[in-house]
Amino acid sequence: MPKSPPRGDERRAAIADAAIHLVATRGLRGLTHRAVDTEAGLPPGSTSYYLRTRDALLTACVSRMLERDLAAAPPAVADAGGSSDETADLLSGMVLQLIRHRAEDQLARYELSLEASRRPEVLDAITHGGRVLREHLAGMLAPLGIRDPEQAAWPFAAMLDGLLWDRVAGAGRTLSADAFETAVRRAVRALLDGFRTD
Amino acid sequence: MPKSPPRGDERRAAIADAAIHLVATRGLRGLTHRAVDTEAGLPPGSTSYYLRTRDALLTACVSRMLERDLAAAPPAVADAGGSSDETADLLSGMVLQLIRHRAEDQLARYELSLEASRRPEVLDAITHGGRVLREHLAGMLAPLGIRDPEQAAWPFAAMLDGLLWDRVAGAGRTLSADAFETAVRRAVRALLDGFRTD
Repeated sequence: MPKSPPRGDERRAAIADAAIHLVATRGLRGLTHRAVDTEAGLPPGSTSYYLRTRDALLTACVSRMLERDLAAAPPAVADAGGSSDETADLLSGMVLQLIRHRAEDQLARYELSLEASRRPEVLDAITHGGRVLREHLAGMLAPLGIRDPEQAAWPFAAMLDGLLWDRVAGAGRTLSADAFETAVRRAVRALLDGFRTD
Repeated sequence: MPKSPPRGDERRAAIADAAIHLVATRGLRGLTHRAVDTEAGLPPGSTSYYLRTRDALLTACVSRMLERDLAAAPPAVADAGGSSDETADLLSGMVLQLIRHRAEDQLARYELSLEASRRPEVLDAITHGGRVLREHLAGMLAPLGIRDPEQAAWPFAAMLDGLLWDRVAGAGRTLSADAFETAVRRAVRALLDGFRTD
């Protein structure tokens, strides 16, 4: 009996999730098609069936994380009330939630971003994801009267990413949870205020 | 004839430089003691002689980059005049110089930071480096009247690092050099202003 499409999609998602977990915990050296089969509890050969090449496997990880990022992204401010307090809370909350519930996604994304220097197909996926998220962020900054929101969205996204990086892979690993939360809220607020008056 | 200490120090530095280049260009999979010998143009066994274990080799890379970071760090503002315009220029200039002249150091540091999750000795070196640089940054922020500069230095450093990351490993790889420079200058200025009035 041929597989129905939803079944295939579910398997693909399970494969990407297992691959992301392996990359986050073992690094890219720990990622093989066979290891993904085992991790996902699928019959040997399943991962190769759905994602034949290493590029396809890595790209599927990037796409899967982008899917989750978009599902979890705060709504544009127009929907949420439009005050800069609210936007600061939404953006700080997003960073804190990503650390609390999706630290592995961040680690895997960083590993894959570095590997992308050596793999054009993965680089395209990473760059596409970055652009989509920055457009969304520009949509949140625009209603606050920030000038050239598309331009401001790039360094703003870079700061949010820097805060995530610091916590999962940088020196911020040693901060207490409270100190980290305070730092995130203060920095997001300060950058928003600085952009609103520049 | 026994080696004199300076000669040993020079070799250590050459070994660390070669290792950093390998990590930046080939990833951690490309780093072996033998590959470092070849890259540094040293007799086989030299790297093992100076840095026996893989942990020692990775930690030497982190220390070498920190040395360069401290040598290149802008002076504290008290020395430089003390205005926030000057501090903004110094910090933006530092980010742009790091991208222009030391992009490989950044890539290698990111690779090593991710690997540090699996290697406590490397984690110690990374965390130490991060703390030293943040203390230096706090010393630049303090004269500007920024409240709790030690606290502000953490997210500030995270933003600078996020800007570097975006350019060498993130979606910012696709920005023009001008667009990147404009974004860096605008963001550093905005965050400084936001912190000064928070």
